Amino acid sequence: MSTAYDVTGTTRVKRLAKRGAYDHETVHAILDEAALCHVSLVVDGRPRVLPTLHWRSGNRLYIHGNSKNGLFKAMRDGAEAAVAVTLMDGWVLARSAFHHSVNYRSVMAVGHFEEVTDPEELMAAYQAMMDKIHPGRWDEVRWPNEIELKQTAVMAMELVEVSAKLRTGPPVDDAADYDLPVWAGVVPLKVESGEPIKDATPRSE
Amino acid sequence: MSTAYDVTGTTRVKRLAKRGAYDHETVHAILDEAALCHVSLVVDGRPRVLPTLHWRSGNRLYIHGNSKNGLFKAMRDGAEAAVAVTLMDGWVLARSAFHHSVNYRSVMAVGHFEEVTDPEELMAAYQAMMDKIHPGRWDEVRWPNEIELKQTAVMAMELVEVSAKLRTGPPVDDAADYDLPVWAGVVPLKVESGEPIKDATPRSE
Repeated sequence: MSTAYDVTGTTRVKRLAKRGAYDHETVHAILDEAALCHVSLVVDGRPRVLPTLHWRSGNRLYIHGNSKNGLFKAMRDGAEAAVAVTLMDGWVLARSAFHHSVNYRSVMAVGHFEEVTDPEELMAAYQAMMDKIHPGRWDEVRWPNEIELKQTAVMAMELVEVSAKLRTGPPVDDAADYDLPVWAGVVPLKVESGEPIKDATPRSE
Repeated sequence: MSTAYDVTGTTRVKRLAKRGAYDHETVHAILDEAALCHVSLVVDGRPRVLPTLHWRSGNRLYIHGNSKNGLFKAMRDGAEAAVAVTLMDGWVLARSAFHHSVNYRSVMAVGHFEEVTDPEELMAAYQAMMDKIHPGRWDEVRWPNEIELKQTAVMAMELVEVSAKLRTGPPVDDAADYDLPVWAGVVPLKVESGEPIKDATPRSE
């Protein structure tokens, strides 16, 4: 059983190659923690970028949106997609301007999205999305009806050409700069949930 | 004095147009708060996406990286860029699966990056970047030397075709669904800084 994605010419981490990772565990953990991805496409020869929610089941990456979305149309017509998922974990403050950096965990995937039409996969995909938003949510909410299912498209990409890239740890300064009287280190960043705000709209009854 | 960006065919918010905004204040506030952007380019006919730090001075958007970055080369050769900046402010939990959403503030900019070569703009750009990472940082650190300046490229895009898109507030459910006994509301999300971790590497002396 393979537990890592193949390293291909497209997804091999070229710059700072030691930051690259291809194992399922690392790639999937980043995809699962991040809410948003950015999907890049070529439409009529021009670059387009779509920020959107994503979720994962096994080796399949899902996004969804209005069925009439022009970028989904391009995907149906065979347009290749490059997907970036980026988690920013901290500012890295070095003693020199040059060595300032960011601690991050990112994933890049290249491939083709196809529309999910199989009813079973479609409902499983909606459940997985809802449970990513809030665990157990699918069992609480009203499920999509026929009209809503028609208005929405779910697109899936099989993860084949995919890699992760990570930076962790303290700044790395030039030897001579360690003598400078400059505070250096990492300012960690984290996405925190605030107190939930209940919708005050009353029931109609 | 114009205080809003022109609405063009490329940047006009088409889907959910009421969420669009074009005024400088809204656009600039999102660009300034967000650390990361995703730059989409077409290289050899294929989509590429680059997650990278950005910063702003006036109506100019800056990014930087290794001078030999292949995407920067494409930009120097005239490749158009689509830049997305996305802040996620909360999960919107509706009573129906369909109306679940995200509160967000995003910016989309389309245009061309050019390399900053004017020494004065270059140093001002480095200062602005450092001060975005940590206010006043530029006055504390060792400034870039000749070798470092050669290894790094700063690219600037004049903001002309740019728009913001925002969602705020509670879920909007179908009238009948307000009777469902489902918790609905917003779970706010915020990026928080943790306790700074000082680099423990000793001085050489």
